[in-house]
Amino acid sequence: MLYLTRIEHFNAAHKLYNNDWSREKNEEVFGKCANENWHGHNYELYVTIKGEPHPETGFLFDVKKLSVIINQSVIEKLDHKNLNMDVDFMRGKMCSTENLAKAIWQELIRALPPQVKLHAIKLYETPRIYVEYFGE
Amino acid sequence: MLYLTRIEHFNAAHKLYNNDWSREKNEEVFGKCANENWHGHNYELYVTIKGEPHPETGFLFDVKKLSVIINQSVIEKLDHKNLNMDVDFMRGKMCSTENLAKAIWQELIRALPPQVKLHAIKLYETPRIYVEYFGE
Amino acid sequence: MLYLTRIEHFNAAHKLYNNDWSREKNEEVFGKCANENWHGHNYELYVTIKGEPHPETGFLFDVKKLSVIINQSVIEKLDHKNLNMDVDFMRGKMCSTENLAKAIWQELIRALPPQVKLHAIKLYETPRIYVEYFGE
Amino acid sequence: MLYLTRIEHFNAAHKLYNNDWSREKNEEVFGKCANENWHGHNYELYVTIKGEPHPETGFLFDVKKLSVIINQSVIEKLDHKNLNMDVDFMRGKMCSTENLAKAIWQELIRALPPQVKLHAIKLYETPRIYVEYFGE
Amino acid sequence: MLYLTRIEHFNAAHKLYNNDWSREKNEEVFGKCANENWHGHNYELYVTIKGEPHPETGFLFDVKKLSVIINQSVIEKLDHKNLNMDVDFMRGKMCSTENLAKAIWQELIRALPPQVKLHAIKLYETPRIYVEYFGE
Amino acid sequence: MLYLTRIEHFNAAHKLYNNDWSREKNEEVFGKCANENWHGHNYELYVTIKGEPHPETGFLFDVKKLSVIINQSVIEKLDHKNLNMDVDFMRGKMCSTENLAKAIWQELIRALPPQVKLHAIKLYETPRIYVEYFGE
Repeated sequence: MLYLTRIEHFNAAHKLYNNDWSREKNEEVFGKCANENWHGHNYELYVTIKGEPHPETGFLFDVKKLSVIINQSVIEKLDHKNLNMDVDFMRGKMCSTENLAKAIWQELIRALPPQVKLHAIKLYETPRIYVEYFGE
Repeated sequence: MLYLTRIEHFNAAHKLYNNDWSREKNEEVFGKCANENWHGHNYELYVTIKGEPHPETGFLFDVKKLSVIINQSVIEKLDHKNLNMDVDFMRGKMCSTENLAKAIWQELIRALPPQVKLHAIKLYETPRIYVEYFGE
Repeated sequence: MLYLTRIEHFNAAHKLYNNDWSREKNEEVFGKCANENWHGHNYELYVTIKGEPHPETGFLFDVKKLSVIINQSVIEKLDHKNLNMDVDFMRGKMCSTENLAKAIWQELIRALPPQVKLHAIKLYETPRIYVEYFGE
Repeated sequence: MLYLTRIEHFNAAHKLYNNDWSREKNEEVFGKCANENWHGHNYELYVTIKGEPHPETGFLFDVKKLSVIINQSVIEKLDHKNLNMDVDFMRGKMCSTENLAKAIWQELIRALPPQVKLHAIKLYETPRIYVEYFGE
Repeated sequence: MLYLTRIEHFNAAHKLYNNDWSREKNEEVFGKCANENWHGHNYELYVTIKGEPHPETGFLFDVKKLSVIINQSVIEKLDHKNLNMDVDFMRGKMCSTENLAKAIWQELIRALPPQVKLHAIKLYETPRIYVEYFGE
Repeated sequence: MLYLTRIEHFNAAHKLYNNDWSREKNEEVFGKCANENWHGHNYELYVTIKGEPHPETGFLFDVKKLSVIINQSVIEKLDHKNLNMDVDFMRGKMCSTENLAKAIWQELIRALPPQVKLHAIKLYETPRIYVEYFGE
C-alpha cells in the first residue's frame, strides 16, 4: 500500500458566527474571527489517496488527473469565494477548518473514480494551524 | 549600514472592485478577485529598517520593540479585518497589494521613532505574489 | 474523528552530555553536540489533538485557547532557556529531541482540560530533523 | 515508541516511459513526463525510524549515523543521476515516485543495522507532490 | 515606484558539459553536474516588474496577465524539458543557472508589453542556490 | 552583472549581555535574550557574490567551491558553538545578529579569492528575523 498526496491552494473569506447567538456571545466565543465584515485566508489543501502502483505505469493514480478532479470538484467552488455565502456544500454549517475539511472529504469521495481510495484531507488555514480528517 | 527585517502575519478579507465601474467591467478587469462577497488571504509582512548597530547593544534597533510598533500601528488594524470596509488608512483606495504596501509604509513612517529609518515594505498576498515598496 | 494541529516556536540552548561518562567518551558519542559551552536551536513544536467538532462552534477545541495552554505550560519554560539547566521537567534527563518530545507530552497532558485528547507531539530540532511521539 | 525523521536531498533526471508501448501511447498516458530527452527534479527524502530512546544517550539512534547510512546506501546512487539509466536498484522499473519510494525502502532495510526499525519513507517529487510508503 | 513579483515553477533536466573539452576535464571542472546521462531540478522562477499603480485598478500590472506571459514565453519552453537539447533560447550556451537567468530575462523583455518594466529575474536551482539578474 | 547566492546552515548558543552593565540593566534592555545560561538558534546564512559568468563554464564562480570556502572560513567556527565563548572573530563583541553578520562579512572577504566579489550577507536568526549587510 502506497500513499500519494497532491497539494492545492485556494483563498477565501469567512467568519465564525453562530446565527442562533447574540453578537456579544459570538464575539465572546470567536473573538476576532467573528468580525461581521469577514476576514480570510490562503488555504493549503493536501489530498492523500492510497493503493498499489499499476505495473504498466508505476502510478497509484495519475497525479495530474487527481489535480483536475480536486480543482473541478472543490477548488473552483472555494477559490476567491466567501465560505459562508458562496459555497453550496458549506450551507448551514459553521465555517470552521474542521467542518470545511469534512465537507471537502464528502465532495471528493463523490468526485473520485470508485477505484481510487481517499485516505486523508489535510487543510492548513494559516501556516500555524491545520486540520486532518480520515473519513471516520 | 545594516538592514534589519522583522516578519509579521495578518489575515484579512478584501475584494478588488472599482465603484465607478459596472459590475461587468469589474468582473472583466478583476476576474475572480471582484467577487462581491469577498475573498481573503494570509498576508506576510516584511518590515526592513536600516542604520548602524549601537556599540553598547549591538542592535540597530530592538527587534522586539519593532515588532510591538508594527503590531500596534498596522497589524491590529488589519488582522481579521475587511480591508475595504474596516481599515481607516485604506478608505477610498483600491485594496490591491500595491496600495496596501504603500499605505502600510505611510503608517509605519508615522509610528516609528525618528531615529529609525524605514527602508522597505515587502508584502506577500499569496505564497506566489508579493509587492515591495521603498518609499519613493 | 478529526485532528487539529497548532504549531508553536521556541529557541533554546542545550548540549548532549552524559555526566557519568568522561569528556572523551562524550565527544566520541555525541561529537559536536557535546560542546561543553553549549549550542542551540530554533525548535518548531507541533501539538495535535483529536475529537469531534462541537455542533454549535464547529470547533474540536478553540485553537487560540490551545495556543495559550501550550505557551503557559511548555513554551514559557523552554523559550530563550538552557534545556539542561533551566527547565524543571528536563532535570536529570539527557536533552535529546526524543526526551524533550516525551517530556512536552507529559506537561501538556497535565495542562489540557480532561475533555481534550492529546494525539501527537512533533518537534523539529533543525529543518532536517524531527521527532514524533504519540504517548505510548 | 518514538519516531525519528531525517530529511535528505538529491536531484536527478528521469522520464516516464513504458518501453512496451508506442511513443504515441506514452505521450497519451504520461504527457510532458514522457519527454524522450528527460526532465528532472529536486527530490526531498524523509526517512523515519521508530523505537525507544537509549537511557544513556537519549537517542533512538544517532541521527548523524542515520544520515551517513542514507547517503551511502541511496543518496550517492541517486544524486545528480538519471533514474532510468544510472541507478542499479531502479533497473527495469517505471521511474515513478511510487516505485522510487518503494525501492528506497528496500535499499534502506538492507543498509540499516538490525536493531533499527524503519517506519516510513516520504518522497517529495515537487513541492506539491509526495508519496509515502510504510513497507507493506 | 513599486515592485511586483510573481513566482512560477518548472522542472527540467540538464548537464554542465563543455563540448570543447575532454570528458576528463568536464568531470574535473563540473564534478557530478557533468554526468553524461543528465540530472535535473525543480526550478523556482521569480519575475519582478516595477512601476506605479494605476489609479483605477491599484495595479502596477495585472498579476494574472503577468503569469500568462511568463508561462507562454518561458515556462512552456522549459517545463519538463532538457535544457541542453530542447530549449531554443539556450542553444549553444552552457546550461548554468547564471546563463539560464540571463536568457529568461531576454525572452521576457521581448514578451512583456512595452509599458511594463522588467526589474529582476531570480532563479532557484535548488533550495540552497539561486541567481539574480537585473538586466545589466 | 549577475548575483549568485549560496545558503548554509549552522546552529549555535549565545546570549545578549553587556558585561559593563549590571544584571538588572541587561535584563531590562535584552529581556529573555539576557538569560545568563544562554539560549540558541538555527541560523540560515545567505552569501551573495557578484560578477560575470565565465564563457567556458557559464559560472560566476563554482558554487561548490563557494560552499567549501564558507564552511571552512565561518561555518566550522560557528556550528554547534557558543558565539560568546568559542568564536575568535566575535571576541569582545556583542553577539547580536547585526554584529555577527558584519563579522562573517570580514571573515569571508579574507577567505574568498581576490577575483570573487562579495556582494551581501543575509543572516536569519529565527524564521521571522534577519539582517543584511553589504560591506559598507
